[in-house]
Amino acid sequence: MLKRTYDDQVCSIARALEVVGERWSLLILRDAFLGLRRFDDFQRSLGVARNVLADRLDRLVEAGVFERVRYTERPPRFEYRLTERGRDLYPVLFGLMRWGDKHAAPNGPPRVVLHRGCGGTPDDHLVCAKCGESLSVGQLETRAGPGVEVEA
Amino acid sequence: MLKRTYDDQVCSIARALEVVGERWSLLILRDAFLGLRRFDDFQRSLGVARNVLADRLDRLVEAGVFERVRYTERPPRFEYRLTERGRDLYPVLFGLMRWGDKHAAPNGPPRVVLHRGCGGTPDDHLVCAKCGESLSVGQLETRAGPGVEVEA
Repeated sequence: MLKRTYDDQVCSIARALEVVGERWSLLILRDAFLGLRRFDDFQRSLGVARNVLADRLDRLVEAGVFERVRYTERPPRFEYRLTERGRDLYPVLFGLMRWGDKHAAPNGPPRVVLHRGCGGTPDDHLVCAKCGESLSVGQLETRAGPGVEVEA
Repeated sequence: MLKRTYDDQVCSIARALEVVGERWSLLILRDAFLGLRRFDDFQRSLGVARNVLADRLDRLVEAGVFERVRYTERPPRFEYRLTERGRDLYPVLFGLMRWGDKHAAPNGPPRVVLHRGCGGTPDDHLVCAKCGESLSVGQLETRAGPGVEVEA
């Protein structure tokens, strides 16, 4: 948990920001939604200092957003899996992505999200524009979009 | 803008977080969506140091999220109005609120959002559960919810 600097605020947004109100935490979550689970993979993806990453992951585990699971015994190694509590943050990440796509991606979206199996595009409400289904994160797949190559 | 510490990341989420990846900025936006426009009102609501608030508001104006508009000539006084670019951030705030309502509001939601005129409740997709309309921020009204009094 981040320090509660606004303890008197009875507000669900303020409470949520105690857990994810910091850029690295949200970027770690982004990577987790893209399939990353291991410390070294997060570290390579984010280029963040290892102590900062360890601190953020610890906080997210403590907040119940990730579960820390041992995946080998010798040597003991752990991975970080999104819990339901963590997966419920997807709409926040999706909202940030849509905003960035619209207002900060002059070459087009770097990533495109599709309704898996259907191929339709979710609208701003995460409703499939092709079939009309309300989508959850498990029904989505991500591909490289037009903006990814131009800037790279 | 915040410092771009991950300049090589071609990612709309990373770009969006350069603008709003900091708790005070998101709490200022929350207050703006609740109708606040003036420096002193933000300051009272947030209890944040005046220099921090001034800095965050300047950044949000620079990023095109707020427009700084003079509302009296003598003395010259300004208010901060959400631009379209700013209003487009509503789904992010709504997502944070829903997450906090579900996972960090043991006494129930402190605030309840309703489809104005219809009275229906938006679902996680910001679609009205009563009439089925996809809602934008201008169609919503906020009321005190069951969680507001218990903690206060």
